[in-house]
Amino acid sequence: MTSDDLPRGIDRRALVAGLALLPAANPAPIFTPAAAQSGAPLPSWNDGPAKQAILDFVRATTDRASPKFVPPEDRIATFDQDGTLWVEQPIYTQVVYCLDRVPAVVAQKPELKSREPFKTVLSGNHEAIAKLSLPDLEEILMATLTGMPVDVFQAEAKKWIESAKHPRWNRLYTDLTYQPMQEVLQYLRDNGFKTYIVTGGGQDFVRVYAQQVYGIPPEQVVGTASGTKFGYDKDGRPFLTKEPKLLLNDNNAGKPEGIHLEIGRRPHAAFGNSTGDRQMLEYTGAGDGARLMMLVLHDDGQHEYAYGPAHGLPDSKVGTFTQALYDEANKSGWIVISMKNDWKRIFSF
Amino acid sequence: MTSDDLPRGIDRRALVAGLALLPAANPAPIFTPAAAQSGAPLPSWNDGPAKQAILDFVRATTDRASPKFVPPEDRIATFDQDGTLWVEQPIYTQVVYCLDRVPAVVAQKPELKSREPFKTVLSGNHEAIAKLSLPDLEEILMATLTGMPVDVFQAEAKKWIESAKHPRWNRLYTDLTYQPMQEVLQYLRDNGFKTYIVTGGGQDFVRVYAQQVYGIPPEQVVGTASGTKFGYDKDGRPFLTKEPKLLLNDNNAGKPEGIHLEIGRRPHAAFGNSTGDRQMLEYTGAGDGARLMMLVLHDDGQHEYAYGPAHGLPDSKVGTFTQALYDEANKSGWIVISMKNDWKRIFSF
Repeated sequence: MTSDDLPRGIDRRALVAGLALLPAANPAPIFTPAAAQSGAPLPSWNDGPAKQAILDFVRATTDRASPKFVPPEDRIATFDQDGTLWVEQPIYTQVVYCLDRVPAVVAQKPELKSREPFKTVLSGNHEAIAKLSLPDLEEILMATLTGMPVDVFQAEAKKWIESAKHPRWNRLYTDLTYQPMQEVLQYLRDNGFKTYIVTGGGQDFVRVYAQQVYGIPPEQVVGTASGTKFGYDKDGRPFLTKEPKLLLNDNNAGKPEGIHLEIGRRPHAAFGNSTGDRQMLEYTGAGDGARLMMLVLHDDGQHEYAYGPAHGLPDSKVGTFTQALYDEANKSGWIVISMKNDWKRIFSF
Repeated sequence: MTSDDLPRGIDRRALVAGLALLPAANPAPIFTPAAAQSGAPLPSWNDGPAKQAILDFVRATTDRASPKFVPPEDRIATFDQDGTLWVEQPIYTQVVYCLDRVPAVVAQKPELKSREPFKTVLSGNHEAIAKLSLPDLEEILMATLTGMPVDVFQAEAKKWIESAKHPRWNRLYTDLTYQPMQEVLQYLRDNGFKTYIVTGGGQDFVRVYAQQVYGIPPEQVVGTASGTKFGYDKDGRPFLTKEPKLLLNDNNAGKPEGIHLEIGRRPHAAFGNSTGDRQMLEYTGAGDGARLMMLVLHDDGQHEYAYGPAHGLPDSKVGTFTQALYDEANKSGWIVISMKNDWKRIFSF
């Protein structure tokens, strides 16, 4: 049995490890540069090879005189979300959502109150929660992400995402998107690219806020997906129920598989930040003509988080960026983005 | 075990029945009206309630002063393909493709030559082919639609669709799209709608030609889909293989489920022609505001085919339009399009 829909941006073991990192609440000062005023593209990027690679790629694919020109209808760019477009530390946002939903699930099914793993989650004891087993976590995901009508799930997730805050910055999770990456999304769209999110996170979850947060409509979010079941309510109105049946585990090899399933063609650009994005970048790079593959390296612990273990950074079970991935990037001509050196700012605030 | 990817626009039994209808070749005169010259929308439609319903829907959803105005980003319209956008009689085009592919599959695997059901298909005996059992047909679909790299499948399907001809008209299958429906696709797109195909046919198959034939890009084709498997060739290049694993049976209840999976929101307009489209129209109609649900009734046997059994038309196992569906349409305010009365012409030629 597999858990549905989610926390799979993600090695499942990372979930457990990630939970250990649940912060009590450690607000820290953040980097707040003056807002960029330039009309030039990518204002939050420092001049350097990463910024230049993006500018060169767009020029090569959009200039009709270029041998690498790509017709507008073929301009597809895919972005991982967790750790690539927004903060994923100390634990994936959607896992926080699932844990936060447990009281509501228990309220509807009181018999769960004294049953593990719900009892432990209700205790609020972070140490005990961090020690939950993988089957326990799967049970929590299953209970909080499936079994309800799609409309109900969407309303619940929307309400949560509009109010839940990240403990370090005490800001909405949706405020914690990377301004430089928002600029890349916009710059590519301004140049005729269709921008997609291809996330290990839950497709239904991310679709709730992607339009508002990234300007990406629901149909351009590919993510880990459960099946739904069509049925009728007591008044004969049709509706869909989220089923505990995994259709797509959109991580690792699942990313190119998900791209084929829901997009049907190879991207010309792909952005990621962890080993879960490797196959997506390989698949993108295997195409002809101009292709841009980039990986965000989290090397700015002062303003965000520092983790790898590539490049001598501390190891992390969440968003792991191995040295092997770093070596493959260098060998394959993928660009590693240093958050510390390539970005002038991390957030818009 | 289920067959992958295909012939499921479709009650599976219809496949068997449909095969019985394989024509020897009965070319018949076709309706060739003078080309419409008007700049007004929907020139191939006669004035009447069906045409008016489309015009009214577009006006209501695009006029900012309308209480039923729909923001451009929410304008989603879905179209069944077989029998709604192109000819599906006497048998679904993709089934013809699968039967035509058998010799090539046998050439690669000579051991199949003397094995059923391949032996029967190779015999070319239509009567014997029509009597193949459902498991036999599934074996043919599996052998011809899966097991090869995605790129190889696409190249083979493209080559076939560019040369195979319908026996009645001796024309490419892609010439047999309904001109009035092409006009609806264009008219909706001209008014900001994203047009999708939502077909029981194979997603990978239809994506090969949808852009060229309907102006619909691969990512806007939702269809019955098999899984793929990511791997590397002997030179280390990544590629996807089509697997005999059904992910989405995009027919009946599978249509709204597929719409949720790959689009993520409810259409404002949906077009179909058979019982396999019922749930898609119900799901569309259950939304708020302006919704347009239409069913094409094949009542012009002289210029195309006449089948139902609704409305006293002959019964058909391919594209069945039952009286119950006809009654539901009337009760629910869905518009039934009479090919005979609502259309001035059927094809562009």
